[in-house]
Amino acid sequence: MTARAIAAAVSSLEAAFGERLSRHEAVREQHSHTVAGHAGQWPDAVLFARSTDEVAEAVRTCARHRCPIVPFGIGSSLEGQVNAPLGGVSIDLTQMDRVLAINAMDMDVRVQPGVTRRQLNEELRATGLFFPIDPGADASLGGMAATRASGTNAVRYGTMKDAVLAVEAVMADGRVIRTGGRARKSAAGYDLTRLLVGSEGTLGIITELTIRLHGIPEAVAGGICSFRSIGDACRAATDCLLHGIPVARIELLDDVQVRACNAYSDCSLPEQPLLLLEFHGSEASVDEQSGQFEAIAHQHGAENFAASSDPDERTRLWKVRHDAYWAARALMPSADVTITDVCVPISRLAECVEATQADIAESGITAPIVGHVGDGNFHCIALAPKHDAVLAETILEFSRRLSQRAIDMGGTCTGEHGIGQGKCDYLLAEAGDAVLTMQAIKRALDPDNILNPGKIFSPSQGGAYDGSDSSSAMTALTS
Amino acid sequence: MTARAIAAAVSSLEAAFGERLSRHEAVREQHSHTVAGHAGQWPDAVLFARSTDEVAEAVRTCARHRCPIVPFGIGSSLEGQVNAPLGGVSIDLTQMDRVLAINAMDMDVRVQPGVTRRQLNEELRATGLFFPIDPGADASLGGMAATRASGTNAVRYGTMKDAVLAVEAVMADGRVIRTGGRARKSAAGYDLTRLLVGSEGTLGIITELTIRLHGIPEAVAGGICSFRSIGDACRAATDCLLHGIPVARIELLDDVQVRACNAYSDCSLPEQPLLLLEFHGSEASVDEQSGQFEAIAHQHGAENFAASSDPDERTRLWKVRHDAYWAARALMPSADVTITDVCVPISRLAECVEATQADIAESGITAPIVGHVGDGNFHCIALAPKHDAVLAETILEFSRRLSQRAIDMGGTCTGEHGIGQGKCDYLLAEAGDAVLTMQAIKRALDPDNILNPGKIFSPSQGGAYDGSDSSSAMTALTS
Repeated sequence: MTARAIAAAVSSLEAAFGERLSRHEAVREQHSHTVAGHAGQWPDAVLFARSTDEVAEAVRTCARHRCPIVPFGIGSSLEGQVNAPLGGVSIDLTQMDRVLAINAMDMDVRVQPGVTRRQLNEELRATGLFFPIDPGADASLGGMAATRASGTNAVRYGTMKDAVLAVEAVMADGRVIRTGGRARKSAAGYDLTRLLVGSEGTLGIITELTIRLHGIPEAVAGGICSFRSIGDACRAATDCLLHGIPVARIELLDDVQVRACNAYSDCSLPEQPLLLLEFHGSEASVDEQSGQFEAIAHQHGAENFAASSDPDERTRLWKVRHDAYWAARALMPSADVTITDVCVPISRLAECVEATQADIAESGITAPIVGHVGDGNFHCIALAPKHDAVLAETILEFSRRLSQRAIDMGGTCTGEHGIGQGKCDYLLAEAGDAVLTMQAIKRALDPDNILNPGKIFSPSQGGAYDGSDSSSAMTALTS
Repeated sequence: MTARAIAAAVSSLEAAFGERLSRHEAVREQHSHTVAGHAGQWPDAVLFARSTDEVAEAVRTCARHRCPIVPFGIGSSLEGQVNAPLGGVSIDLTQMDRVLAINAMDMDVRVQPGVTRRQLNEELRATGLFFPIDPGADASLGGMAATRASGTNAVRYGTMKDAVLAVEAVMADGRVIRTGGRARKSAAGYDLTRLLVGSEGTLGIITELTIRLHGIPEAVAGGICSFRSIGDACRAATDCLLHGIPVARIELLDDVQVRACNAYSDCSLPEQPLLLLEFHGSEASVDEQSGQFEAIAHQHGAENFAASSDPDERTRLWKVRHDAYWAARALMPSADVTITDVCVPISRLAECVEATQADIAESGITAPIVGHVGDGNFHCIALAPKHDAVLAETILEFSRRLSQRAIDMGGTCTGEHGIGQGKCDYLLAEAGDAVLTMQAIKRALDPDNILNPGKIFSPSQGGAYDGSDSSSAMTALTS
């Protein structure tokens, strides 16, 4: 992976693709732009691909020169997934943005990877179907699959792991494969679909997806409820699941986050820990669910549960929730932002959130908490003034403690943001020797490590792609 | 993999494990016994393992000698998965049969691989939780994970792909890894759990599983309904899903199968295509679901829909369904049995079942049809008198046409039985070049091909494990 090899690959791509290969600084900068945390590392060039054949041709060219390739959706990943630490070519898939086939009877849809989640739901409008997975950004479906994204509806509808039925992918040698199929289940060979979902572009570039949809529920009701303590809010959420209430959304905001939302979105929510809920089903069922939850909330000391089936009010509330990240940022304009993303078994949720809140207080940092608590998943949005190295180090230590706390509780260092560049060490702490198996798969499918190098596995983890064998990774792991 | 190397491995294991390593003919025969179709191919010896450490030790010994290993649960797989075509050692996991931890609050359980599905539900009895996945046999959970099993409840509760949260597995070099975790979701690295589930013992031996459970529903109602034609029955099933009825079970029996069940189970069901249903939910919800389905059934010409919430009657009916395989066998005692297992998108279900029934008639074979039609999955239980080579060939040709029909409709050659020895060629037809990717993973994780060799990939598929590279597999694929 020398600069010369990359230059040769870029020249070759330029000859083939003309103006759709860009070396402009602004374009390169934009393609390493991340929403939070990681400093941008520019690719040498950006290719705007228009078809699977073009992606395959570009990969073959890069493979010949051993030039790194970084697949790019809309660049909303949070752990540096679109950065180009070794340079190379960013392949922008946003022009592959067509919905190819809606199969209403099978409740599935075939799309190109650049289709975004909102675009898909727009195109589904007339069908009575919807796609429930909603990360904060209006992300591309290819990127969402690559990072195993989820969002607020996962407690009921699952994550991209559950939504993706099949993919077409360009592998490291330029070969195009199709995994999975449109049947609702299969026992035919290795589950390559689930292997590619969450592989963050390190095993193949997803160029087409078949996605499972859901029927728009007959009735939707919203609920909102404040609690005296964050532990009470978490315990109410956990009880909701234990009672088998098929809640569609159950989101936690801590008091700091509520204050931030009040200021940013001009509302006047009680500045206490808050749960926002949504119930899907028949008219009778959503009433039943809402009533059951209200009883649980009362048991945990909440007094102001309010239900609403008014669509405008619901939309407004969920806009407040979706803007929570920007509201948190507005607490400290132009701050550096670190977003954590742990997920624990729900039996440990209250304990983990309470310990984390105490840690935030002791650390003296500003870090509002928001969570998809039905999954046991929550984020701290930690803010530090730029160039405050001491506070940055404090936040780093806090993040480390939080990841270790989640892992110690049987949880994970990332519920939905992925490993990227930011969590390679935590992956090692969490998965242990299984990382060696992951690396063996990576080496088998991408022996020259051209697909999104430096993601999931850090270069320090045994330098597994420079010709050394797994024993060196083992040394790194145990040393 | 010479006989001498295997003998050396067996001697070494005998020295370490004493009487728990058996060379008895009856034991070896029993460990290659399959319920249907495939002729037994005996292992050279059977090891009864009692712990992960013992499995790891045995694998290390076999790896040293390059001796094949066949993991064994209860031997109820249907595609020759426990056969030992190259000899070697069968590792019997039935003595690893402890439920290690029930986490009621997280609705999960940690078990050893030899625990069977009925044993698990017995042990869960006091918790209000249950494990829904029910293949025909009382299979072991390790075997069910390895073959990505499902059963009658999959339409509502998913398959082993969805149920398994985490595994511990012994890899081909004897290393023990842990994949996944107890959090409800994770974005941490490659999804090795889903890679091992369905890998049929070819990538690792599952020595522990963490499994997701479900709350026992407040109310359960059964339903039964005859139809004039099998197409009508399929269309009613499909409509049930399209209307979003969260049916827990929806099973099809064709008229031939109903006659077989009447004779075998001494009942008097109308000898027409039949749907058996089950609804789970609150009292109000199961009534609503049952009523909605009845209306749909009427639209498709059914007149005798009967609902029942009597547990004894339900149990009796589902026993009839679970005995369908034995009832079909009783149609032709001591026949050779071929069980097909296709799964198609539900939009193509009626068409596929009708075409298959016509094919059965034209072929002049006896092959009752049963199906988990909510998944688009159905089986034909084809019977031929022993030593009738002509009829056996006719059934083989019928099976080939059926698999191709399912694949042509966007479906799969196996919904739940796996590839094993029986469907390697169909996998190639279905997955194309993706098989090369599967083989590359197999080579990376088991370079000497000691884990369940001859399963999923047939030796003729490029001889991918004898040192040749993937290009020969490509040749096999395209020739």
